[in-house]
Amino acid sequence: MATPNAAPSERTRVRRLPERATYDAEAIAAVVDAAPLAHIGFAHEGSVHVIPTAVWREGGHLYIHGAKASRLLKALVASECCVTLSLLDGLVMARSAFHHSMNYRSVVVYGRFETVDGTAAKFRSLQAFMEKLSPGRWNALRPVSDKELNATTVLRLSLAEASLKARSGGPKDDDEDMAWPVWAGVLPLSLQAGAPQTDPQSVVREAPSVPLRWG
Amino acid sequence: MATPNAAPSERTRVRRLPERATYDAEAIAAVVDAAPLAHIGFAHEGSVHVIPTAVWREGGHLYIHGAKASRLLKALVASECCVTLSLLDGLVMARSAFHHSMNYRSVVVYGRFETVDGTAAKFRSLQAFMEKLSPGRWNALRPVSDKELNATTVLRLSLAEASLKARSGGPKDDDEDMAWPVWAGVLPLSLQAGAPQTDPQSVVREAPSVPLRWG
Ligand SMILES: Cc1cc2nc3c(=O)[nH]c(=O)nc-3n(C[C@H](O)[C@H](O)[C@H](O)COP(=O)(O)OP(=O)(O)OC[C@H]3O[C@@H](n4cnc5c(N)ncnc54)[C@H](O)[C@@H]3O)c2cc1C
Ligand SMILES: Cc1cc2nc3c(=O)[nH]c(=O)nc-3n(C[C@H](O)[C@H](O)[C@H](O)COP(=O)(O)OP(=O)(O)OC[C@H]3O[C@@H](n4cnc5c(N)ncnc54)[C@H](O)[C@@H]3O)c2cc1C
Ligand code: HEM
Ligand code: HEM
Repeated sequence: MATPNAAPSERTRVRRLPERATYDAEAIAAVVDAAPLAHIGFAHEGSVHVIPTAVWREGGHLYIHGAKASRLLKALVASECCVTLSLLDGLVMARSAFHHSMNYRSVVVYGRFETVDGTAAKFRSLQAFMEKLSPGRWNALRPVSDKELNATTVLRLSLAEASLKARSGGPKDDDEDMAWPVWAGVLPLSLQAGAPQTDPQSVVREAPSVPLRWG
Repeated sequence: MATPNAAPSERTRVRRLPERATYDAEAIAAVVDAAPLAHIGFAHEGSVHVIPTAVWREGGHLYIHGAKASRLLKALVASECCVTLSLLDGLVMARSAFHHSMNYRSVVVYGRFETVDGTAAKFRSLQAFMEKLSPGRWNALRPVSDKELNATTVLRLSLAEASLKARSGGPKDDDEDMAWPVWAGVLPLSLQAGAPQTDPQSVVREAPSVPLRWG
């Protein structure tokens, strides 16, 4: 099915190994939903900076948040940037060093962030952020105050100019190497949650069991 | 113990939550060793780009590799860049939404990559890369050819101008919220290896058990 950004822009057209690329909005949205983090690149005072932040998605936009006073957030509304999200899915072990690789899904987005204005809009958006990380938790929390909302900036970036590149599957060795006597295959990798560490002063002692839907 | 870059430069001085920062070379090296990936930010043809790549360390330098023809690698030797490595260690669940956070270790490096020249130097360096990912594997592989080395560019970046920012530990809630009846604590997160997937044509069927020393 054709989607609005199913074709690349001049900037997002993947040149190296283009067979690993897609520009499909739904596939791009799925990677943003699965990624806890984004790396944001922007130019400021003569240097390029790359800063990691938490990230979530609503519709066709990617969202970030932080302090109103943050350099990152102030610089982003003033200029174009590039946001990259990468999920490492495995280590690909070939018969030759040269054909080793990684399995991954990554998205590169270009554009300019815009401010999410107003207490109500920020409230709804931060609720969506919490919903990504721990569905259902928001209503159990001490309610967010206006003071907290005022100290917080929420920004969003359109996913319209974005590319997805992904590798999956086993090693691709040269024909003449197939019988080389070394183990070849994939070591799958994923972000996993360990046993919850209850805060010593937590009144509720039993951690809710929330399956990890991202990472 | 004082190390060469134990003090920040004007660019690397962490301003937001500076108590989470350090500039110690050994601590920075440990994060590079633990990180499978880096996100590289550079300006090229009027845009900032952020590209993910595998990364390893030798002494005071961080290394990357790729195709000789790659835009990324060609652009990097021509200008300054910013390289960021982030390890997500946990989700910090507070009693209020506002005090939720993530535990992490991240390094931001500024500088300019230089080319690792010569077949022998590239060979040694790619061997060090393999040693990070799968210790001892290099000698079992079909040997690297000169043709492969010629098609490959290896670049390195000094870690001299770098900062490390890290958060660990439980939620820091406001005093008046401590008895709020919601679970508070940390959900630890880490990159884990799953069961090895042996290639259907692998002559060796038993995967070597290599503990994950990074990720
Ligand atoms: C986990 C991981 C590890 C990797 N390790 C290496 C490595 O060690 N060496 C190496 O050479 N490459 C590696 N890559 C691939 C790397 O991200 C680039 O795709 C590749 O280096 C080509 O870069 P380029 O700037 O020359 O690409 P070009 O194809 O010239 O880039 C053109 C445009 O394509 C899009 N694009 C490029 N790369 C990506 C991407 N990864 N995801 C989404 N869109 C993209 C962007 O819009 C970019 O502006 C890795 C990728 C991932 C996710
Ligand atoms: C996993 C993770 C999730 C995060 N989520 C968020 C979020 O959702 N919202 C948010 O506001 N912040 C988040 N951060 C923190 C974020 O990376 C920045 O530290 C923060 O946003 C301040 O950015 P700034 O450019 O305003 O910092 P400044 O303090 O002005 O940056 C000055 C210099 O400090 C150094 N520096 C800044 N940040 C880092 C870093 N993370 N690691 C190493 N050196 C650094 C760099 O050299 C930078 O040039 C997260 C960090 C990590 C690792
Ligand atoms: C040590 C284990 C290695 C790993 C994990 C690894 C991983 C990777 C990855 C993930 C890519 C990106 C491919 C993509 O764009 O999807 C890549 C590209 C590349 N690697 Fe490696 N690599 C390894 C060893 C080597 C060695 C030893 C060589 C050379 C002797 C080499 C040469 C290359 C080249 C030339 C490319 C560029 C491919 C292209 O863009 O056309 N790699 N590598
Ligand atoms: C939903 C879960 C949330 C998570 C996982 C989260 C995560 C984070 C992280 C990791 C940081 C960076 C701290 C650092 O620099 O070390 C941060 C900063 C910040 N967050 Fe959140 N956050 C969440 C919800 C909220 C909410 C609901 C608000 C506001 C109501 C908020 C306001 C802020 C502010 C103001 C900062 C900046 C701190 C500073 O730089 O001084 N966060 N958040």
